[in-house]
Amino acid sequence: MMNKAYTEAQMKINEYLQSYFIHYENKYEKKFNEIINYSLMNGGKRLRPVLFYKTVEILKGDVEKNLDLACSIEMIHTYSLIHDDLPAMDDDDYRRGKLSSHKVYGEAMAILSGDALLNKAYEILFNKIFEHSDDHDLIKACRLIADFAGNHGMIGGQVVDIETEYSDISNDDLHYIIENKTAKLIIASIVSAGHVCHMSDEYIELLKKAAYHIGYSFQLIDDYLDVVGDSKIIGKSTGKDNALGKNTYVKYNGIEKTKKDAYEHLENAKNYLFLIKGYEWKFFIDLIEYLKNREK
Amino acid sequence: MMNKAYTEAQMKINEYLQSYFIHYENKYEKKFNEIINYSLMNGGKRLRPVLFYKTVEILKGDVEKNLDLACSIEMIHTYSLIHDDLPAMDDDDYRRGKLSSHKVYGEAMAILSGDALLNKAYEILFNKIFEHSDDHDLIKACRLIADFAGNHGMIGGQVVDIETEYSDISNDDLHYIIENKTAKLIIASIVSAGHVCHMSDEYIELLKKAAYHIGYSFQLIDDYLDVVGDSKIIGKSTGKDNALGKNTYVKYNGIEKTKKDAYEHLENAKNYLFLIKGYEWKFFIDLIEYLKNREK
Repeated sequence: MMNKAYTEAQMKINEYLQSYFIHYENKYEKKFNEIINYSLMNGGKRLRPVLFYKTVEILKGDVEKNLDLACSIEMIHTYSLIHDDLPAMDDDDYRRGKLSSHKVYGEAMAILSGDALLNKAYEILFNKIFEHSDDHDLIKACRLIADFAGNHGMIGGQVVDIETEYSDISNDDLHYIIENKTAKLIIASIVSAGHVCHMSDEYIELLKKAAYHIGYSFQLIDDYLDVVGDSKIIGKSTGKDNALGKNTYVKYNGIEKTKKDAYEHLENAKNYLFLIKGYEWKFFIDLIEYLKNREK
Repeated sequence: MMNKAYTEAQMKINEYLQSYFIHYENKYEKKFNEIINYSLMNGGKRLRPVLFYKTVEILKGDVEKNLDLACSIEMIHTYSLIHDDLPAMDDDDYRRGKLSSHKVYGEAMAILSGDALLNKAYEILFNKIFEHSDDHDLIKACRLIADFAGNHGMIGGQVVDIETEYSDISNDDLHYIIENKTAKLIIASIVSAGHVCHMSDEYIELLKKAAYHIGYSFQLIDDYLDVVGDSKIIGKSTGKDNALGKNTYVKYNGIEKTKKDAYEHLENAKNYLFLIKGYEWKFFIDLIEYLKNREK
């Protein structure tokens, strides 16, 4: 996966993520920590927190001081995967090459561990605000994360994704799913980093546009990898979207156009980043090149 | 239910709660609002937000200004009920005398509407902090709510409740379930009101103790009503705890001792409140008398 800069950030995040669910009062809390950590420490790519981390670094912010925000974003992402995999949702037995949470611990514990991760993400953010209550930009960052994870963001996208299975939808609805289900949390990851680094409103807008195109392209790439990818390399079942009657970008546009459009979104992202002057965007340029070449 | 003071607060909260899930971008969001409001506006007692509301009033705080906090607490409570009712959890077809969410809209939408309510609760709190970022006590209130709703609070209690079904547990574990699953969110409702009214640390501690005893007694009363109550009046199935192999206070202590201990907790609550001088606790005294007499 990607380059050394990515892997270093990923390792740092993994180390920090490990420190949250370790305290317990009794054997049940101990076991519940295990259940949560099974999903949280399951070898994920950490794309969202890495994007947050590297954006803070590029904007010359304090990376160490903000690692907890990176972790809270990953917890939101992980909860959404646990709930998505449930039999009532996408009914997926595997996640990242391992049995999904409900297959190992049962549905009740999978639901509750998702709930606990979502709740913990916000506990972390409130603690952060409590420690730095004079930092108004930090509050902006937290608001954005919660807003983009909610019913007009990630959850909203998931709702339409599920509700439209096995039926055809309009282009607007397809766009709504991709923007909300996938792009919003990626936008939140990058733009909240801009907030904690006290970026100007003008630059925040540019960062938001760049992040939107990265997030959008990410879903398009996911869609065509589900068709052409190798499940061993991707670490989850392939051909699943079609079997579930999912409305993917590929379904309406074919593989070639999906690839082409993903490429174009990535180019757009690059162009917006270049408008944010005075920073070294190399990490993002490398990521964009990597994503362009990610055929499987 | 209770007296005029209670009903007035309840009506105010209902009115305000109604204003959250009304905006939509497309027919799917419109439908999802309906699904959320089906559970949220389902004629609940509103105990937790009423406790918050009346505490703010008694402490001479600004009730209107803090209605959104009351609503966020009710959203956390409602999400927990939706998830608790799922087939994988308590498998309850009825809630407040009506079909539960998953019976009407299916499990996927029930899970997602619970997720959306939990997330929205925190969106509300971040917005509040954003508007009043100089109010450090407000941040304390939000932290407490999130903390007591999480894996060392309400969710933790629910985990042990589910994990210990059909088996016997120690007194410590029974106490853990009652304290966390039920008392914690009730404590958060009352004590967060103390925070937004800028109470001293000393008085916060007394309020916390009073709230603990109210919350604890509330679960004890619920336990014996499940055995002796009339399902038409309570609005949910009775005898359910036993059928589910739940570890209730009644199971270990019998009905009479449960009643007696609930009574004692309520007396303790009253005594702690009386130590908080300079305020008129009549509403709580009436509530305590009402709870003592609530035989069905």
